[in-house]
Amino acid sequence: MESVGEIAKFLAKEFPPVFGPDRGCSVEVAEAGRAVCRLVPTDDHLRPGNIVSGPTMMMLADATAYAALLSIYPGAIQAVTTNLSINFMRSIPAGAAVVAECEIIKPGKRLAVITCEVRGADTSDIAAHVVMTYSVPPTANDVKVS
Amino acid sequence: MESVGEIAKFLAKEFPPVFGPDRGCSVEVAEAGRAVCRLVPTDDHLRPGNIVSGPTMMMLADATAYAALLSIYPGAIQAVTTNLSINFMRSIPAGAAVVAECEIIKPGKRLAVITCEVRGADTSDIAAHVVMTYSVPPTANDVKVS
Amino acid sequence: MESVGEIAKFLAKEFPPVFGPDRGCSVEVAEAGRAVCRLVPTDDHLRPGNIVSGPTMMMLADATAYAALLSIYPGAIQAVTTNLSINFMRSIPAGAAVVAECEIIKPGKRLAVITCEVRGADTSDIAAHVVMTYSVPPTANDVKVS
Amino acid sequence: MESVGEIAKFLAKEFPPVFGPDRGCSVEVAEAGRAVCRLVPTDDHLRPGNIVSGPTMMMLADATAYAALLSIYPGAIQAVTTNLSINFMRSIPAGAAVVAECEIIKPGKRLAVITCEVRGADTSDIAAHVVMTYSVPPTANDVKVS
Repeated sequence: MESVGEIAKFLAKEFPPVFGPDRGCSVEVAEAGRAVCRLVPTDDHLRPGNIVSGPTMMMLADATAYAALLSIYPGAIQAVTTNLSINFMRSIPAGAAVVAECEIIKPGKRLAVITCEVRGADTSDIAAHVVMTYSVPPTANDVKVS
Repeated sequence: MESVGEIAKFLAKEFPPVFGPDRGCSVEVAEAGRAVCRLVPTDDHLRPGNIVSGPTMMMLADATAYAALLSIYPGAIQAVTTNLSINFMRSIPAGAAVVAECEIIKPGKRLAVITCEVRGADTSDIAAHVVMTYSVPPTANDVKVS
Repeated sequence: MESVGEIAKFLAKEFPPVFGPDRGCSVEVAEAGRAVCRLVPTDDHLRPGNIVSGPTMMMLADATAYAALLSIYPGAIQAVTTNLSINFMRSIPAGAAVVAECEIIKPGKRLAVITCEVRGADTSDIAAHVVMTYSVPPTANDVKVS
Repeated sequence: MESVGEIAKFLAKEFPPVFGPDRGCSVEVAEAGRAVCRLVPTDDHLRPGNIVSGPTMMMLADATAYAALLSIYPGAIQAVTTNLSINFMRSIPAGAAVVAECEIIKPGKRLAVITCEVRGADTSDIAAHVVMTYSVPPTANDVKVS
């Protein structure tokens, strides 16, 4: 998929629990191996202390990485996460939107490595730092990958 | 908290998005630094291919680790995840319940390290292997910790 | 390779900085996807406080995982570590031998996931817990892999 | 410690296996939570294929993170690595020097999170990406930490 519009449409259709119309999650950027998604948290995304929950940040990071892969890998639809490592560093209060920004630092033929920073929309402080590995089907990746 | 009943009641009250009455998640074991939770997935827990999503497994692992901490740390209510690393190894089909089994392998004064195996209820194959670090408030941990 | 003797001989030849005759590292078990290696630390393996250094434990875990792979994958000679995540939990004093015990928990066709526990030879307490992913060349793995 | 010279001198004295005069490892930058170290590999740092070994990159990343901590934490001498997660992405051939560049992305009171990129000196491609957590003694950290 080439444009952020196509990618957003695909994700809304295939991942309704994350990108469905009432879930508060949107794709803002998805091009050249980089993606940004934004989530407006609902009560389901919070934990005691009225802060954004850890699993919410993980879900957003994983979804944003997938959007980044779709922007460069023809076969990325079948890509699957093999490893995700997250460091939680600061909390995000309930009122703020959550922004995840991903970059593919190794667009390999079989494995892609993606870093992600998750933060509250109104701050430059990183709330969570994530590194993910995706396994990408080898057959379909004959273009655009270094 | 000392009994699995107390811990389950506390989690149902404090984490309704995970342990609320209609969420399909229950605490089966929580004692002596070990915990088992079970999830009956709903559509929200699935991804394309009709398999249990990665974020669902992460959420269940994190919740089960918290139950394990509550079983030995007086101050565990305020414990927070600092690192979670997960390897996805096999998929769990939609029909199966998901079981997470956690063990605290390092019950430190300030940091606890917990391993977790996530699998479908009907198999011994591990679907996901997780290692987590929790930061535990130092002031409240004067008992039961090696 | 089928026997621990063959694997030890291969490692001594190919990895002299780790398994060479004067390096103190020996293969004790390597069969059926499980391996145990032992290191008698020299001054080079220590850090201030007269304890075994972190990189020493990582090196031993990585080498032991490789021995485990050699025991089941025909193509393991060309396997490479893609991810290693280690939690340091307790120190090992200078006098003790260091033992690493690895188990392949996912012997996949392209990726293998291996867990490892590192400890002092005289204790059951885990000093470091390691999870590794190896990429295995797909062409050579037509036997003995689930 | 305030200057890169002081830090380099301290490391040479305390970590002779890494920073000793004949080990090929030098501190180039260490200030304001950022550090760069350089290693000229010897045969002991190589693995089959005549490339820099994984444990060598881990050792260099860990040492560089420690140099970064020394630049801002008064108590960093007693800091210890609690978690290290490394993704190996590209190989570094034997002839090249190895450069590790670390940044503290979370200088917490008790835990510091540091990212690191390891590469061959002559390229901008990342060979290994590392995320580390250090535990820092709480008593001594009353200055310069956000």
